[in-house]
Amino acid sequence: MSVLVVGSVALDTITNPFGTIEEGLGGSAVYFSLAARAFTSVKLVAVVGTDFPEEHMQLLRDHGVDLDGLKVETGNTFRWTGEYSADLNMARTLDTQLNVFAHFKPVLPPSYRHVDSLFLANIDPHLQRDVLAQVDKPVFVGCDTMNFWIEQKREGVLEVLKLVDVLFINEDEARMLTGMKHLFDCAQAILALGPNTVAIKRGASGVALFQQDRVFVAPVYLPARAVDTTGAGDSFAGGFMGFVTKAQDHSWETLKRAAVMGTLLASLNIESFSIHRLHTLKQTEIMERWLEFQKMTEYKPEPAPF
Amino acid sequence: MSVLVVGSVALDTITNPFGTIEEGLGGSAVYFSLAARAFTSVKLVAVVGTDFPEEHMQLLRDHGVDLDGLKVETGNTFRWTGEYSADLNMARTLDTQLNVFAHFKPVLPPSYRHVDSLFLANIDPHLQRDVLAQVDKPVFVGCDTMNFWIEQKREGVLEVLKLVDVLFINEDEARMLTGMKHLFDCAQAILALGPNTVAIKRGASGVALFQQDRVFVAPVYLPARAVDTTGAGDSFAGGFMGFVTKAQDHSWETLKRAAVMGTLLASLNIESFSIHRLHTLKQTEIMERWLEFQKMTEYKPEPAPF
Repeated sequence: MSVLVVGSVALDTITNPFGTIEEGLGGSAVYFSLAARAFTSVKLVAVVGTDFPEEHMQLLRDHGVDLDGLKVETGNTFRWTGEYSADLNMARTLDTQLNVFAHFKPVLPPSYRHVDSLFLANIDPHLQRDVLAQVDKPVFVGCDTMNFWIEQKREGVLEVLKLVDVLFINEDEARMLTGMKHLFDCAQAILALGPNTVAIKRGASGVALFQQDRVFVAPVYLPARAVDTTGAGDSFAGGFMGFVTKAQDHSWETLKRAAVMGTLLASLNIESFSIHRLHTLKQTEIMERWLEFQKMTEYKPEPAPF
Repeated sequence: MSVLVVGSVALDTITNPFGTIEEGLGGSAVYFSLAARAFTSVKLVAVVGTDFPEEHMQLLRDHGVDLDGLKVETGNTFRWTGEYSADLNMARTLDTQLNVFAHFKPVLPPSYRHVDSLFLANIDPHLQRDVLAQVDKPVFVGCDTMNFWIEQKREGVLEVLKLVDVLFINEDEARMLTGMKHLFDCAQAILALGPNTVAIKRGASGVALFQQDRVFVAPVYLPARAVDTTGAGDSFAGGFMGFVTKAQDHSWETLKRAAVMGTLLASLNIESFSIHRLHTLKQTEIMERWLEFQKMTEYKPEPAPF
C-alpha cells in the first residue's frame, strides 16, 4: 500500500502569539507525508534547492518517506514568511520566495507509476493534471486547491475536479469556487463539478464531508492546545488519505472515519511549530485520541425527545 | 413542569447581507421562551413600554408563555439597532435605547416562586442575584452573561456563578472571564468558579459542554441556511433548559442531549429574521432535525484504526 503526494517542501518563518520559528521544515507535501506515514508508505514528489538541510532529508527518510521523487535543483528552497492573528485562524503572508519551486515540473520516477492513492496538494492545477497523466489510474485521488488558483486558473481547477475522487477545500474557497453563500449549497455545486466526495475544512469548526444526498459533520478535537496552525489542512488530508489507503476501501463509512482521523492528525500537528509534533508522533498517541474523540462526541439519541 | 426566564424583551432593527427588519420582536427572554416552549411551560419576567405592540403580547400568550411577570411601564420598549458582518458571525451595535429597560427591577409575582428551572439571561448580575433571592431554590439554574458585565461588574458575575448549575457563555467571553487562551483551560477555570457545568457557545463551530473531567463537543446543524443569527445563544439556552426541565433530570447524559437540542433550536431560529421561524415551529420539525443530526454526526469507531 502506498500513497503518492505531490506538493511543496518549504522553509517557513512564522510569527504568532505563541512564538516564532525561523526556517522551520514545512510545505504541503511534508505535512501530508508525516501525517499519512502513520498509516501507509508515502512517495513524495517535490523540489528543493541545494541549500535544503540534509537533516530534513534524513528526517523524512527516517519516517520511511520515499524521496526518489524529490528533485534537488541548483538554487534555493521555497521560503514562506507569515504571521498569524491572535486566534491563529488567519495567516498573513509577509514574504514568499518561490525560488526553485517557481519552475517546478513534476517528473515521476518509474517506481511511482503504480500507487493506491494520490494526493495532489495545493499547486498549479496544470501541474496537478500533469501528475495525473504520469500515473496508472490510482484507486483513489484527492486534491486541494486555493483562492489563487480559483481566481487565476479557474479552467485548470475545473479540469482537475473532473478527474479526482475527493476535493479538500476550506470554507472561503468553497464559496469563491461556487459563488454560493451557504456551505450546503457550495458542497452540492462542487459535487456537480466532478468529485464524488468533498471535504470542507472549517478550521476550528471541524470538517464537513459531503456526497450526493449525504453529509457527515465532525467537530475538532477540542482539547488540543493550538500553538501553530500551519499545515493543519495538509495534515488533515494526510490523515484522511492515509487512513483510506490503509483501509483499501472508500465506502461512505470508511470516508467518515477517515474524516475523523484527518481532524485528529490536524489537531496533533497544530500542537507544535513546524512538524515537531508529527515528527515524534506514535501510533499509540493517535489511538488514544481516536478513543477520546469518540467519547467526547457520542450521545444517546434515544429515547426520542417527544 | 415550568422554566422561569428573566431577561429582555426588545424591538430589534437589523441589517445584514440577507435583508433588513425594522423593530422586529426580539430580546433574550423572547428567544428563550419561544425555544423552551416546545418542551415545557414558560414563565417570563421582563419589562416593556406602553408602546409594545399588543400583537407581540398575543403571540407570546398564544405560545402559552405566562406573562404575569411581564411588567408594562410608561415609556418606550428597549430598542436595539445592529448590523452584521457578511458571514453573520459578528454584530455591530449601531444604536441602543434602553428606555424602560434602564430601570428594570424584576419583581416576581407569587405564582412564580416555585419553578423547576430558572434561566438568568444576560442582564446586570445584581438583578440576576435579586431574582434568585425571590424564588424557592429551583432544581436547575442556568445563567448567561456578556463582555460588558464581565468588564464592568466582575464581582457581581462571580457572585452569581457560585449560585448556578450551568453557565452559558461564548468563546470570547470565556477567554475574557478567565484570562486563558485555550478553551479547555477556560472551561476548567470557570468550573472552579462555581458552576457544575459550562456550555461554551462557539457560533458556527457548535457547542462544547464541560464538567469536571468531562467534555462533550457537538458541531452545528450544518444544513441550516442562516439568515439572521440574532438570538442564536438564547434559543440555544431555551432548547437546552427546556429539554432539561422536561426530562426532570440533569445527569451528564441528559445534559449532552440537551446541548444537542440547544444547537438544533439555535439552527432553527437563525433561519429567519426575528422570531418567525420559532413562532411557526412544530414539534415534528424539531424531531425531524433531531434524527437528521444524529445521522449526520454518527460514525463507527470500530474496528480500531491500528
